[in-house]
Amino acid sequence: MTENLSEPVRDALNAAYAALSICPPNPRVGCVITDLSGKTLGLGHTQRTGGPHAEVMALHDATAKGHSVAGATAYVTLEPCSHHGRTGPCCDALIAAGIKKVVASIADPNPLVSGQGFERLRAAGVEVEVGPGAAESRELNIGFFSRMVRKTPWVRMKMAASLDGKTALDNGVSQWITSDSARTDGHAWRARSCAVLTGIGTVLEDNPRLDVRQVATPRQPHLVVVDSRLETPLNAHLFIAGRALYIYAAEQNDAKKAALEARGATVIYLPGAHGKVDLAAMLHDLARREVNELHVEAGHKLNGSLIREGLVDEFLVYLAPKMIGQGFGMASFGPMTELSQTVALEFRSTEMVGPDLRIVARVKGRDQF
Amino acid sequence: MTENLSEPVRDALNAAYAALSICPPNPRVGCVITDLSGKTLGLGHTQRTGGPHAEVMALHDATAKGHSVAGATAYVTLEPCSHHGRTGPCCDALIAAGIKKVVASIADPNPLVSGQGFERLRAAGVEVEVGPGAAESRELNIGFFSRMVRKTPWVRMKMAASLDGKTALDNGVSQWITSDSARTDGHAWRARSCAVLTGIGTVLEDNPRLDVRQVATPRQPHLVVVDSRLETPLNAHLFIAGRALYIYAAEQNDAKKAALEARGATVIYLPGAHGKVDLAAMLHDLARREVNELHVEAGHKLNGSLIREGLVDEFLVYLAPKMIGQGFGMASFGPMTELSQTVALEFRSTEMVGPDLRIVARVKGRDQF
Repeated sequence: MTENLSEPVRDALNAAYAALSICPPNPRVGCVITDLSGKTLGLGHTQRTGGPHAEVMALHDATAKGHSVAGATAYVTLEPCSHHGRTGPCCDALIAAGIKKVVASIADPNPLVSGQGFERLRAAGVEVEVGPGAAESRELNIGFFSRMVRKTPWVRMKMAASLDGKTALDNGVSQWITSDSARTDGHAWRARSCAVLTGIGTVLEDNPRLDVRQVATPRQPHLVVVDSRLETPLNAHLFIAGRALYIYAAEQNDAKKAALEARGATVIYLPGAHGKVDLAAMLHDLARREVNELHVEAGHKLNGSLIREGLVDEFLVYLAPKMIGQGFGMASFGPMTELSQTVALEFRSTEMVGPDLRIVARVKGRDQF
Repeated sequence: MTENLSEPVRDALNAAYAALSICPPNPRVGCVITDLSGKTLGLGHTQRTGGPHAEVMALHDATAKGHSVAGATAYVTLEPCSHHGRTGPCCDALIAAGIKKVVASIADPNPLVSGQGFERLRAAGVEVEVGPGAAESRELNIGFFSRMVRKTPWVRMKMAASLDGKTALDNGVSQWITSDSARTDGHAWRARSCAVLTGIGTVLEDNPRLDVRQVATPRQPHLVVVDSRLETPLNAHLFIAGRALYIYAAEQNDAKKAALEARGATVIYLPGAHGKVDLAAMLHDLARREVNELHVEAGHKLNGSLIREGLVDEFLVYLAPKMIGQGFGMASFGPMTELSQTVALEFRSTEMVGPDLRIVARVKGRDQF
């Protein structure tokens, strides 16, 4: 699709992509300002939360380069905001700068904006065109759109397995099935997420940190632990200063809650059936906490529960060039009795990452919201 | 590698590739004859067993086009044969035609040829160069090289599974996990093989024909059944007129043998341990029967036995965009206790086939013979 886009739209999308791991939970937005001849005057993307949005960055960039933007066109990959959020409205900045035309990829799904940005621009006499790069911008912000529209995060489940689908040997050994390259790549996917989710089984077995280490990142995603009976050890590695930690529990235990919260965690009771956490309610709660993309790295049981309940949107699978035979599978759910009951996916990309194969597969139709 | 090859070498390799499913168990060989200016005078590839070899086809082609080949150069992807096999020696045909130079990709591993072709050409005053396209020619004939050098076929195991590595639901249902496109592609891989191998479990459960149907083919590969106790039903679909059928058994039962042979099968007793067929000995026997590439389509038990015994060279895996959860795995072997014991592979290619993903993975180092 991208090939048919004009150069400033492509540049704006590339700028937005550069904000991939920087700006969440804000959407990834890029802005390019061009003069009448099409020359780029300024370019920018959304900064870290609380920092300037793409439009303001592009205006600053033009000013810094000594360009006047009066009469210029601004290409922006999402509708400029019209409300006072963490920053002032971008519409006002564009209008004040004398921008004559705004080409926006797609309307902001945020109910606080949603069309009002365009209205505000038009009311000020700015010409507005909407559409170029819409699909790309939405895809880049699938988590933000999901949170705004579905009120749940975009759930991406990461799994590392052998070619025959085993995530661990029969004795539980799993470190490491995939290569260092694949693990680094996995850290880049963690970095773009708003939160990493795991289960108490993984915490107790592997005692992981689940932070972003192998790639540079300006921010750490939150950590979410599904821990029905609040068994997270107080000395677990996952307590990291400055990182938000949400522990979802099913059984109330206020002493444990207090102890975990003293270690910096936020404990949330969301009891569901069978003494387990209500996973669907948890996703709604995480969306309220501004989680766009939820990156799941859990064991086969929690993976299976999330799949069984229809809560997974996408799979990020690393297949190592190995055959393991007897061992643990990727996800425990089923059994199904007919092939029509299986979870239908679509392969979106396959790429070699070092010696391993990375497959991104999306649950069919899940992006149609 | 191919990019660095000269045009006639590439043309000769392409001609050889065109013989993929035609000439087995003969090697796939292409030949291009050029004049001093590099113009192609004639081109050909090996025909069906007993038919002319590539060199003779190329000479015929040149003659048919009215070209004289006296003083010309012949590019041939395998050493021209020097012995009277099913056809006369190609060396003699090249010499008789007045070919001045032969550029051969690689020496024939057949002990009846192996260097003698080159000697015979040189003795007749023909200039001989060896090497261009060697890796490609060997790879195209990996089964032939395996049979000649290792005295066993190249064993390629085909599996169709969901993304989570399941080949069937928990209740055994497996038709069809992959798409029609993938099954057609699978038939093309059957077509290039000398023999398809399956186990009695698959015969009893699925009653398959295991012939080539979904693609055009000039020949049907043989069928091999591992059937330790000679349980193949006399009315099974796998009895197909004109196709060779080899049944390997462990327990002697001459009445059943006679009945199966009356249906056209050849029954071979090769008892191994635990009342099972000696699979390694079977491979040697199949090589003696001129099987170059052995295409395995079996269930998880026979797959597991072949893997456990280190008899598999390559995996041809179709992954369907599905998650199945509980179900049958690809191959039952192990358990292993350390990751270093797993079967190390190298991914050779990944390609979309319709909605499915085809992965060719080779057991590390298995092609170094």
